[in-house]
Amino acid sequence: MTLPPDLVQQLEKLLGPRLSQGAADRDHHAESASFHRAPPPDAVVWPESAEEVSEIVRACADAGVPVIPWGTGTSLEGHALATRGGVTIDLTRMDKVTDIRAEDMQASVQPGVTREALNTELRATGLFFPVDPGANASLGGMAATRASGTAAVRYGTMRDNVLGLQVVLADGRIIRTGTRAAKTSAGYDLTGLFVGSEGTLGIITELTLRLHGQPEDVAAAVCAFDSLEHAVECVNATIQSGIPMARIEFVDAVAARAFNLYAGTTLPETPHLMVEFHGSPSAVREDAERFGELAREFGAQGFDWATSPEDRTRLWRMRHGAYHACLILRPGATGVVTDVCVPMSHLPAAVAAAAEDIREAGLIGPIVGHVGDGNFHSQLLVEPGNEAEITAAKRIATRMAERALAVGGTITGEHGIGIGKRPLMAAEHGEGWQVMGAIKAALDPGNILNPGKLVPDRN
Amino acid sequence: MTLPPDLVQQLEKLLGPRLSQGAADRDHHAESASFHRAPPPDAVVWPESAEEVSEIVRACADAGVPVIPWGTGTSLEGHALATRGGVTIDLTRMDKVTDIRAEDMQASVQPGVTREALNTELRATGLFFPVDPGANASLGGMAATRASGTAAVRYGTMRDNVLGLQVVLADGRIIRTGTRAAKTSAGYDLTGLFVGSEGTLGIITELTLRLHGQPEDVAAAVCAFDSLEHAVECVNATIQSGIPMARIEFVDAVAARAFNLYAGTTLPETPHLMVEFHGSPSAVREDAERFGELAREFGAQGFDWATSPEDRTRLWRMRHGAYHACLILRPGATGVVTDVCVPMSHLPAAVAAAAEDIREAGLIGPIVGHVGDGNFHSQLLVEPGNEAEITAAKRIATRMAERALAVGGTITGEHGIGIGKRPLMAAEHGEGWQVMGAIKAALDPGNILNPGKLVPDRN
Ligand SMILES: Cc1cc2nc3c(=O)[nH]c(=O)nc-3n(C[C@H](O)[C@H](O)[C@H](O)COP(=O)(O)OP(=O)(O)OC[C@H]3O[C@@H](n4cnc5c(N)ncnc54)[C@H](O)[C@@H]3O)c2cc1C
Ligand SMILES: Cc1cc2nc3c(=O)[nH]c(=O)nc-3n(C[C@H](O)[C@H](O)[C@H](O)COP(=O)(O)OP(=O)(O)OC[C@H]3O[C@@H](n4cnc5c(N)ncnc54)[C@H](O)[C@@H]3O)c2cc1C
Repeated sequence: MTLPPDLVQQLEKLLGPRLSQGAADRDHHAESASFHRAPPPDAVVWPESAEEVSEIVRACADAGVPVIPWGTGTSLEGHALATRGGVTIDLTRMDKVTDIRAEDMQASVQPGVTREALNTELRATGLFFPVDPGANASLGGMAATRASGTAAVRYGTMRDNVLGLQVVLADGRIIRTGTRAAKTSAGYDLTGLFVGSEGTLGIITELTLRLHGQPEDVAAAVCAFDSLEHAVECVNATIQSGIPMARIEFVDAVAARAFNLYAGTTLPETPHLMVEFHGSPSAVREDAERFGELAREFGAQGFDWATSPEDRTRLWRMRHGAYHACLILRPGATGVVTDVCVPMSHLPAAVAAAAEDIREAGLIGPIVGHVGDGNFHSQLLVEPGNEAEITAAKRIATRMAERALAVGGTITGEHGIGIGKRPLMAAEHGEGWQVMGAIKAALDPGNILNPGKLVPDRN
Repeated sequence: MTLPPDLVQQLEKLLGPRLSQGAADRDHHAESASFHRAPPPDAVVWPESAEEVSEIVRACADAGVPVIPWGTGTSLEGHALATRGGVTIDLTRMDKVTDIRAEDMQASVQPGVTREALNTELRATGLFFPVDPGANASLGGMAATRASGTAAVRYGTMRDNVLGLQVVLADGRIIRTGTRAAKTSAGYDLTGLFVGSEGTLGIITELTLRLHGQPEDVAAAVCAFDSLEHAVECVNATIQSGIPMARIEFVDAVAARAFNLYAGTTLPETPHLMVEFHGSPSAVREDAERFGELAREFGAQGFDWATSPEDRTRLWRMRHGAYHACLILRPGATGVVTDVCVPMSHLPAAVAAAAEDIREAGLIGPIVGHVGDGNFHSQLLVEPGNEAEITAAKRIATRMAERALAVGGTITGEHGIGIGKRPLMAAEHGEGWQVMGAIKAALDPGNILNPGKLVPDRN
């Protein structure tokens, strides 16, 4: 596909050098943090305002050319690839925190602001934004994938922390969803509909976010278990007991070994839990003590309490760097990252079955997870281009998803659908998937917004 | 409108005596907890399964006859009235708690189960369902209006506590939305779309609900302030300080007087806050102490700590009975209940302006509110049939809504749109209201599901 010359002219007039048809720019936007690949888009544009996004979309819609929003490109299912050609809309220049309303614990941001940039700007306010996928993703991309991460067990996911959006629709109209009030019953939850829609219903040009108070005190720890089952059962018991956790992360023996190799730590090479508590000093102390008692009941050993901010940063840097650390287990390999979420009572069996599958396939695949939500990943290390291994990895990923469905879980807890999980959508949603298609057709009749993703193909 | 004889025959065959065209049954379903009135539906049906609901909807759709779901009829904006005739689907016979999965802290219920019935069934499990509009509403109706109530500041609204739904669509198809996992990124959030859709997109025939652990310990208190501003500023300060509240309710001087008259209490007739803390005994003690200090800074007096379960029940029965208590202020009157929600920093001014409007209009209108969310109501006492008073009350309600919009708030925090708030939808959502209309048209092309409500009229 080449772009109609009229369209190129129109976009050039609007954007000048912020339109590129150069190979380097196009190739950069054909990269993916995952093994998914697609040809590059026909052009890349860098708008600086909602009005420019609107004009771009209107022009592309008139020409019947796809538009694909791009945040930081860290999504893991090929979400932002231009599988049907078209114009990639790179939102990195829309990177302003437009308004911080500390007294209302809210901020308004453009979509290209990253979570780290936002938290840096918030530092002096005593507030923070808690959703933290490992990558330093854009807030627009995080909303579009309904991202979560380590702190979701306490603070929720993007679903819970986006109060409102500004969105450019498929015909260029600009709408606002939601309000600045903490809750509303005023009609359909459009904010919730656009969150998780992966650029297929509209392009997010501003977000109103819910902020949280920086905790008065924090305690964090890592502790070792003798088996995966004991570690995961300890998570369950902690939740049942009502101890309020800010984070509770599982790391299996293989991942512990990777950390040791990568970071020079001396963790016992067994399953671990990494936990964090937020609150007043006395509440944190009480929570930590109660957790310690429970953990010991499940055989936990080698508690390492990270009490200084530096120790905690080191601990969570280790967890957030898990993806890169694990690559050391097989130099030159790339990771096929799986992502399922199950009801808590099914978590021990689901993790055990995944580990067994990986062992049987003869692959290296560390397992880590945001287990307080029942969400876990394996990172299956395959040789790039080795089709047999990639097929084996995909088979494991599919089996994990099918097992999650069999117990009432979901094929993706936080990464989303993109192209990778699309073949499993009918299995999860049945006729509901057609309802998603009907909504897509109503809001994007020309099928120009990130086509070929998430919803069924049109007949 | 009379029903086509074919349709009546079909429904009679399906439902036998669970179809009624009798005046008493029809009139009962033309009642409303509010001042809104409409002619009765043409018939009422009482299905007992999703399959029956599906057949009813299919038959009505074929005949082009509206269907209006009915929970317990306590909604306050005329939501469940048959404004365009048709068949009211009364869901009170679908009242089974189908499954309690205590280990996953979830329950599945039919839509006619009331919140009190569910909590009674849960008592032995150590779990409870926290969303509590004052009325003993049905869980289907609560989901349909995105209800909340006193405990939303801690546990969230129906948006946060519904994990999944079974829904009968406008063409009779039965779909399932959501999963039993704590979170999912698998496509559009259909659960969130149906929650708050007020019966206009589908009929909820089952709900998967998130449960919470009954708190280990509870402390509750009521305290008096010398002014509305001080009380509301105290709420703000409490939130900013991060003290975790389970409930924080505002009651103005007029409402306090009503409680005294109705329940024989001896509250000072000034503004009050009613608060509750949930947690471990030591956490609750700490939270209560910190709140007490803050409240005293804002001049709070006459703390009355309700430490026994009986005292607490009495306290919250008083709050939940506020609607009926307030009617005592003007015997024979009926209440026009307003409902706005604003960002916290605008709450003191919003409440003060509402009080001033009510005073100027010469009406009696106590103000109460779930102020931890920025949500408050006035209950304007008007003489039934007195059009001048009803007009004055509606004018106050509209001004409150407009003032909420001016500061980024919403025209309804929890009651919903129905027919009463529909004229304000364009002001809140602009072009977004048309997007809601497009979704409605896509999912209900024949416009048979609760027509004339929530979305714009079709051209
Ligand atoms: C090492 C690593 C660890 C990770 N850990 C986590 C984790 O713990 N939790 C988690 O949830 N995810 C995780 N992820 C996945 C990824 O970080 C998230 O999916 C993130 O939300 C993607 O954001 P992005 O800005 O990179 O979006 P992109 O990858 O650029 O885009 C993602 C999708 O959103 C669309 N999009 C982007 N911006 C917009 C916009 N403004 N409007 C509309 N649509 C838009 C795109 O079209 C695409 O469909 C991880 C990824 C990596 C590489
Ligand atoms: C005294 C009093 C106090 C109140 N306090 C509060 C409060 O604090 N917070 C609050 O949020 N609300 C409050 N309300 C309002 C009311 O209780 C809520 O709106 C409640 O959610 C309505 O539930 P219901 O079962 O009575 O629904 P109904 O009134 O029967 O129906 C409400 C709407 O939902 C639709 N509906 C009902 N069942 C279904 C179904 N199964 N599938 C699809 N659609 C359906 C109906 O068609 C209608 O549009 C109060 C009401 C009263 C009278």
